[in-house]
Amino acid sequence: MFEFTLEKTSEKSKARAGRIVTPHGEIETPIFMPVGTVGSVKGVAPRELDEIGAQIILGNTYHLHLRPGEDTVAHFGGLAKFNSWNKPTLTDSGGFQVFSLAKLNKIGEEGVEFRSHLDGSKLFLSPEKSIEIQQKIGADIMMAFDECVPYPSEKIYVEKSLELTTRWAERCLKAKTRDDQALFGIIQGGVFPDLRRRSAEQICALPFEGFAIGGLSVGEDIPTMYEIADFITDHMPADKPRYLMGVGTPEDLLNGIERGIDMFDCVMPTRNARNALLFTNSGKLHIKAARYRLSDEPVDAECGCYTCRNFSRGYLRHLYKTGELLALKLNSIHNLHFYLSLVKRARNAINNGFFEDFKKEILDKITFGGDNV
Amino acid sequence: MFEFTLEKTSEKSKARAGRIVTPHGEIETPIFMPVGTVGSVKGVAPRELDEIGAQIILGNTYHLHLRPGEDTVAHFGGLAKFNSWNKPTLTDSGGFQVFSLAKLNKIGEEGVEFRSHLDGSKLFLSPEKSIEIQQKIGADIMMAFDECVPYPSEKIYVEKSLELTTRWAERCLKAKTRDDQALFGIIQGGVFPDLRRRSAEQICALPFEGFAIGGLSVGEDIPTMYEIADFITDHMPADKPRYLMGVGTPEDLLNGIERGIDMFDCVMPTRNARNALLFTNSGKLHIKAARYRLSDEPVDAECGCYTCRNFSRGYLRHLYKTGELLALKLNSIHNLHFYLSLVKRARNAINNGFFEDFKKEILDKITFGGDNV
Repeated sequence: MFEFTLEKTSEKSKARAGRIVTPHGEIETPIFMPVGTVGSVKGVAPRELDEIGAQIILGNTYHLHLRPGEDTVAHFGGLAKFNSWNKPTLTDSGGFQVFSLAKLNKIGEEGVEFRSHLDGSKLFLSPEKSIEIQQKIGADIMMAFDECVPYPSEKIYVEKSLELTTRWAERCLKAKTRDDQALFGIIQGGVFPDLRRRSAEQICALPFEGFAIGGLSVGEDIPTMYEIADFITDHMPADKPRYLMGVGTPEDLLNGIERGIDMFDCVMPTRNARNALLFTNSGKLHIKAARYRLSDEPVDAECGCYTCRNFSRGYLRHLYKTGELLALKLNSIHNLHFYLSLVKRARNAINNGFFEDFKKEILDKITFGGDNV
Repeated sequence: MFEFTLEKTSEKSKARAGRIVTPHGEIETPIFMPVGTVGSVKGVAPRELDEIGAQIILGNTYHLHLRPGEDTVAHFGGLAKFNSWNKPTLTDSGGFQVFSLAKLNKIGEEGVEFRSHLDGSKLFLSPEKSIEIQQKIGADIMMAFDECVPYPSEKIYVEKSLELTTRWAERCLKAKTRDDQALFGIIQGGVFPDLRRRSAEQICALPFEGFAIGGLSVGEDIPTMYEIADFITDHMPADKPRYLMGVGTPEDLLNGIERGIDMFDCVMPTRNARNALLFTNSGKLHIKAARYRLSDEPVDAECGCYTCRNFSRGYLRHLYKTGELLALKLNSIHNLHFYLSLVKRARNAINNGFFEDFKKEILDKITFGGDNV
């Protein structure tokens, strides 16, 4: 039901190409997963995601638990049927949102008491409860319930927390009853290499189908994030998928891939799209800018997305400035296409032995090009 | 460049089927025109409009004049190129918005002074100015600049106004220089049959390529609207298209078609979609309603639109309740498809001699069915 095949590893870096088989279909890695918080990728329909090249989308357990509720999703036959995506899906554990979005009441051995960010109602999440909810949501991949410590945190706190996360990971595995869903463990440990290593050793000793790096991209500087990711992947098994959670920019994706990461998710492409910031092969482009008023160029001449094939920068600027709904959709389609195309090209480069050159070429262009100049 | 062929007239009513040829393609009538106020049908992309069966979309001259400005639209090669629709388009004259949306300063023989509803800036529209703007926008069909009197108005005022509208109509014809755009005249006269008749006689004596009925659906009761429309079409030439402006509900479309109308436009399907009100073959459906929470039925089992083919009422309700952008788009696609399918089926019924039965059958269902029950 769940299978990961490592197809190729670069000779010059840790970059790797693989394939994941799930009940809802295959995923070619490295892959970026668009975020569909409450069961829809904001403004983008399933057939558009398909066209963009999305292979797996993410749902947020915390949000889906609040609305429409896991029983409702289950009633409709699970997330993939509910939202008519019908390809692989992944749910997070709810932990990250509980610690970042909700009002935290109490963290204990048993679980976390918190209040809904919507109506303040009292809620409780534990490893067992998270798995129960995720099983009802029915995604192909579930995530273990972990404690996400804020950044910065005292080392002593991070150490205690990673041990708790390990005990919770074991409880998640015990709570899991469905065998058509995979469960991934999450490595914590903040920015402390020795703690990261200890967490990796503990979590990777457990019979998870894949492993994620949690607690990065939460405020630490970028070089630290890369360093930690680089360090941890050496302590993760080669024959299981590796997922860097909540990351990131196009630069982060390429740097993560180079360090042996297979999976990424982030709201950045869609959220930025809704704020008029577009990613292109020559860097970032602020589509609101007055200089695009009369531009009949596409956002990115190298891009093959629906938006770039059909609309000018001038028209997209006009849509954005007048507050038209279509702006949000067309921008989101473009940014997601850019991300999916980037990982697809990275995969091709890995398979053909030139990933490191590809990465350098792209980073040179996207870092210094565009209207960043 | 512009041609109207009357293909069939019903033997039992004034319902008619026809065909309009424009520089951007053909339009089969009766037709409903989705409204793309500032150059986009809110939330719906051109290829989706195509799939829905839209044949011509409308742009609002007043809005396009304010943003992005007619010179910008002209720079991009006209409205159809600007928004990548590339099929027939129609622009109104700006008159209706000036009288309904802007702050009116002064109406004179020369034209209308008003202030922008966006920034209060002082603007002036006249027959010549409206045609100049519309020529730059470059739609296949332009509308003459008319005075839209509020409802109710004194008969003496309506009489003076219709005479002014006739003088403005003559000036519009004189101002027109492009021969690849058609120009339609607008009949006014409020709810006074004798004034309507006088306006029709004056306007229809002028060399317009089509004729519209303006100033209806502005607050008068529905039977009055039907009565006036019925009365005026007897005074309009049979060999030119007839356009009932700003109308209306599905019931209004069928009643208008029965009275000899060929063209309609209205924000109702899209605006209602954004407010969770959906049109179906069994009446109106409020998709927000709690009773749809667990419904895995489509919005309308008889509908073949993307939304109904892929999504349940339960999922659409969830999207709407959580404020997801996708809700607005999926709802709009459905409502527009309902309208376009309705006029297509009406055309088929006219061509096959059963329009009046079709109309009765539909009205029985949509008036008493759905969650209106």
